[in-house]
Amino acid sequence: MDTSIEGVILTDLKRIPHPKGDIYHGLKKNEDSFNGFGESYFSFINYGEIKAWKRHFKMICNIVVPIGKIEFALYDLREKSATKGKFMKIELGEENYKRITIPPGIWYGFKGLGSNNMLHNLANIEHDPEEQENVKIGTFKNLKW
Amino acid sequence: MDTSIEGVILTDLKRIPHPKGDIYHGLKKNEDSFNGFGESYFSFINYGEIKAWKRHFKMICNIVVPIGKIEFALYDLREKSATKGKFMKIELGEENYKRITIPPGIWYGFKGLGSNNMLHNLANIEHDPEEQENVKIGTFKNLKW
Repeated sequence: MDTSIEGVILTDLKRIPHPKGDIYHGLKKNEDSFNGFGESYFSFINYGEIKAWKRHFKMICNIVVPIGKIEFALYDLREKSATKGKFMKIELGEENYKRITIPPGIWYGFKGLGSNNMLHNLANIEHDPEEQENVKIGTFKNLKW
Repeated sequence: MDTSIEGVILTDLKRIPHPKGDIYHGLKKNEDSFNGFGESYFSFINYGEIKAWKRHFKMICNIVVPIGKIEFALYDLREKSATKGKFMKIELGEENYKRITIPPGIWYGFKGLGSNNMLHNLANIEHDPEEQENVKIGTFKNLKW
């Protein structure tokens, strides 16, 4: 599947092997994906469950999945986007350890594929219910999920 | 055990229950413990293994344990500290979900107590081998570990 939604960045991250327990990179302030620090939080998603759909008006999400495997779906309905109408899915986790940067305005959701799944979001602003919108999973009839 | 080493902060964090997977707070920019963003990384520690001892000259660590259980040991040998000579241990993890803020100059290490243990460190500077010192576990003969 074509993963090119305008403004979405996928970044390969290092996992440094260590006999006592590995080190996984997350984000460094000098990387292009860093857009300021607002909040760091973790979200678990149980096997087979889907949390969707959400879009932010201001928050830029920098998400990694250090535990398990999570499928992300992104849907671009931004009026001025060069990729308006595009839909993408990507599986991230221990086996495909990348960071996904999601700019504001993109509808997204995620599904737990492993037995224990956790994402970390390093957001540029603090959580604020006023800057986000949530709709039910079945809202976009044309999308498979 | 007395946990009061000067400058070390323990902060209770929220875990927000959700039927599809819980949300765990990490750090918000307006909290007192936030000292700027340098890097976010994860460190795994296998059951029974110890990573110790390390001290930083500049880095302030903001550590949470969203997966498993980890015992932290901290030893204050800072010349100008009001708590010079103090040693503390604390178990953090899913069952005792707090953030520990470790200022520079304190020797610290950690041990894996669960079957799968992971910490997240949100550091005020990027990793730099020149600003940290490592010594072997047996270095401090007077300490139990």
